[in-house]
Amino acid sequence: MTGSVRIALDAMGGDNAPDIIVEGAALAIARSSDLRFDVFGDEQKLASLLAAKPDVAKVSALHHTPEAIHNEAKPSAALRRGRRSSMRLAIDAVRAGKADAAVSAGNTGALMAMSKVVLGTLPGIDRPAIASVFPAVARNVVILDLGANADCTSENLVQFALMGAVYAHAVNGIERPTVALLNIGTEDLKGDDVVRDAAQFLRENDLPMKFEGFVEGTGLMAGTVDVVVTDGFTGNVALKVAEGTAFWMLDKVKTAVRDSWTAKLGMLLARNSLRRLRSELDPRHYNGAMFVGLGGVVVKSHGGADALGFANAIQVAESLVRTQTNERIGENLTRLHPDDQREAS
Amino acid sequence: MTGSVRIALDAMGGDNAPDIIVEGAALAIARSSDLRFDVFGDEQKLASLLAAKPDVAKVSALHHTPEAIHNEAKPSAALRRGRRSSMRLAIDAVRAGKADAAVSAGNTGALMAMSKVVLGTLPGIDRPAIASVFPAVARNVVILDLGANADCTSENLVQFALMGAVYAHAVNGIERPTVALLNIGTEDLKGDDVVRDAAQFLRENDLPMKFEGFVEGTGLMAGTVDVVVTDGFTGNVALKVAEGTAFWMLDKVKTAVRDSWTAKLGMLLARNSLRRLRSELDPRHYNGAMFVGLGGVVVKSHGGADALGFANAIQVAESLVRTQTNERIGENLTRLHPDDQREAS
Repeated sequence: MTGSVRIALDAMGGDNAPDIIVEGAALAIARSSDLRFDVFGDEQKLASLLAAKPDVAKVSALHHTPEAIHNEAKPSAALRRGRRSSMRLAIDAVRAGKADAAVSAGNTGALMAMSKVVLGTLPGIDRPAIASVFPAVARNVVILDLGANADCTSENLVQFALMGAVYAHAVNGIERPTVALLNIGTEDLKGDDVVRDAAQFLRENDLPMKFEGFVEGTGLMAGTVDVVVTDGFTGNVALKVAEGTAFWMLDKVKTAVRDSWTAKLGMLLARNSLRRLRSELDPRHYNGAMFVGLGGVVVKSHGGADALGFANAIQVAESLVRTQTNERIGENLTRLHPDDQREAS
Repeated sequence: MTGSVRIALDAMGGDNAPDIIVEGAALAIARSSDLRFDVFGDEQKLASLLAAKPDVAKVSALHHTPEAIHNEAKPSAALRRGRRSSMRLAIDAVRAGKADAAVSAGNTGALMAMSKVVLGTLPGIDRPAIASVFPAVARNVVILDLGANADCTSENLVQFALMGAVYAHAVNGIERPTVALLNIGTEDLKGDDVVRDAAQFLRENDLPMKFEGFVEGTGLMAGTVDVVVTDGFTGNVALKVAEGTAFWMLDKVKTAVRDSWTAKLGMLLARNSLRRLRSELDPRHYNGAMFVGLGGVVVKSHGGADALGFANAIQVAESLVRTQTNERIGENLTRLHPDDQREAS
């Protein structure tokens, strides 16, 4: 897709809203020339923030709402009582075709529940998933589900595999992505019925991917395949263990060099390289998870993101729109249920 | 327990058997004065290995068997056809009271299946689990299950929590260990029914622990509690993601300093500290996972362990025997099912 991309921003979602939403939008337009925004939130606060960022103001339409979804709100309560919230109105704009995508740093459960109700799921998808790209050793790996569905059936996993493959093709440009299911061993008999049944289906059916069977947690981090598929419970734990382990290693290194002046001097000499590394590993550069399987593009930013992180989430949304990932997922889903599609058409 | 501890060694299990089994035994007795071994395996090979290690030979009884369990054997096949295998005879020795514990670096599934059949489970335990100690940021954390049970009920998790608490008390010396269930959020409503039901039971019942609710993957690595409980699927993935992330960070650091001579010089100056760190993080020092919930002590060494790793697994077994962890688990289980126990006595 060429031309301008229009993004609906939930300006009241996340720990640092609305300030970092507007600052993030400013960083995003500095990098990409053709973005427009619909900004939903408290008019008074946003008007002064936009006044300070004329580049954002001139490509934005401000839509006032006094309501916002609380970080601790239950999804059901958010659905019932949040009809005039900034989050809901941003999703409504996508549904109405006024915006190409919605971006929010708000409550994940509420955002997923509202997105499902407002945008619906793609034909053939029972449950949407949260997908993201992870910088593993050998390559960038698409991983899903990262927490939308604690319990999954083998059908859910098959649908996630297909969506992940299309995502890897559209966003990472991989012609026939390699796909594996996360498991506790690589032999066919390992794991539970859910992963074994999903593996059997993926082996036996002709889908736009190269199915590689199972991968373990070590293989996920090594980047042995392009797409790793798992249930939302395991995926969420895996992501947070990886985060926690990175922090744990930094802590261990700090402690290890603390008592030696030569080691401290050594770290000083290596500081430029280590600083570049820290920047490369900066989680803000990977911020922005796509909700896949919905009838529209919704991107979730980390709740604690700063302007740089939020700008990245906006760029993820822009790239999903430009690569028409959602349309491609929809087209490929007909391969899972050819009969249903024939009836429907 | 004082006096000598007698350990049955499966001398044919693992990638580097039987050599590293005997070398590991030698390292273990160099550290602990009062160990004795029953060594099960190929007499000819073992006789020459023992001849080279007289310290081991003089505290060992050698029991010949020509059979060994293959690394790829299915548990059911190992059970049927492995009655004269080194693995089976080592477990039989524990059952017969001839040895205090068995240690094997062989096939995990076969070892667990044989241990269950031969030793049975403790009263009140439906399924044994694999437990280990992990050096998190703030403390050593006991984590279970690491892969014995891909699917778990809330009752299984409650039993794991109790066994983990007793383990942390016996082995790490913590009077009233803090315990949490691994989950995808810390709020009461997060996760699936299995973890929520287990949490409710643990909150409402008086058990020898301080129940802290849920912990995320980041909290596991930070070491916010003494014991982390999860199903074998999630636990196995978490452990392997942590391993994979540590490797991933080392790879990133190596790449980052490669092109700068000042950075390389810096790393050279810091090398003593980094070498100490590498030794501290060396997974061989944490080798040796306990099968908890069985009517006897069985310790699993990593299949690829070298002599140092295997020696550590022997030490884990010795410490479990000396602290009478299994007896203490048995006593505490009566708290879960007081009525059953009364009938049984």
